[in-house]
Amino acid sequence: MRADARRNLEAVLAAAKTVFVTSGVDAPAKEITDLAGVGVGTLYRHFPQRSDLIVAVLEQEIDAVAASAAELASQHEPAEALRRWFRGYTDLLATKPGFAKALHSGDPAFAALPGYFRERLGPALAGLLEAAGVRAAPAEDLLYAGAQLCSAVATRGRDYTDRMVAIFVDGLRYNME
Amino acid sequence: MRADARRNLEAVLAAAKTVFVTSGVDAPAKEITDLAGVGVGTLYRHFPQRSDLIVAVLEQEIDAVAASAAELASQHEPAEALRRWFRGYTDLLATKPGFAKALHSGDPAFAALPGYFRERLGPALAGLLEAAGVRAAPAEDLLYAGAQLCSAVATRGRDYTDRMVAIFVDGLRYNME
Repeated sequence: MRADARRNLEAVLAAAKTVFVTSGVDAPAKEITDLAGVGVGTLYRHFPQRSDLIVAVLEQEIDAVAASAAELASQHEPAEALRRWFRGYTDLLATKPGFAKALHSGDPAFAALPGYFRERLGPALAGLLEAAGVRAAPAEDLLYAGAQLCSAVATRGRDYTDRMVAIFVDGLRYNME
Repeated sequence: MRADARRNLEAVLAAAKTVFVTSGVDAPAKEITDLAGVGVGTLYRHFPQRSDLIVAVLEQEIDAVAASAAELASQHEPAEALRRWFRGYTDLLATKPGFAKALHSGDPAFAALPGYFRERLGPALAGLLEAAGVRAAPAEDLLYAGAQLCSAVATRGRDYTDRMVAIFVDGLRYNME
């Protein structure tokens, strides 16, 4: 890909990430392309379907959370790195209720996302748990529990999910060996 | 109510509790009355609709969990009493997936149950939290979080819900003042 094409793609992804939060994943294409400073043709060339764009944005966010594990581990004690990482992971879920809806739409375009989620985030969390000496449960179960607690954000609010996630992470810290 | 009528009612409730677990809440009336040793007429006189019987059984189980708080508090240290109580509460939820389905049926017969649940279990848990010096969240939020974690019992199994609830309760113990 040429450098300007890559810049356009990155601008579209960054704009879509912002617009999905403010206007939802069904926001008009023009809202995204105006923010990105590209033509609508550029958007549709890279992402023919809206689901393609949603997948790309979510994969990028998953990648960012996965990559943050190494950075946090280098900057904090293991228990604190674990706490901060889990908080970042659940922030991703709690701020993206539209994604959960899209993921459960039954659209085959989203079929690979749960696997991507587990394959990228599972090892990231497993490394932090290992460093902190937490063996209370497999990383995949803890990812699932975090997602369960965050699923109530629409009905019980962000204060609730933040408090419950904090208690859950304290439970992991309680289990450090 | 006469003594023999009361005995029959208690036998029906005890039998229904057992049959609901083994055969589900839609089990045939005769399965319940055979186990209780009463006629089908006795069942329908006390509980004209199946939903009436489900409500009565669930209220009885809620009452038992609520009442266990005082007993546990008298026999164990506050942290251990809290741990055992929450385990008993989530056991109730994890072993009764049919109840959750009934509760979400939209049948007006179940409309009062969530309130009953909160009014009986909220103060029971609040007392244990107070005794243990845990002020991380209101009792009602913790009841809800326990229910959220247990809601995965059908898809992820009892091992999962037991482990996640244990971690969550460890998080409460981590927050003892």
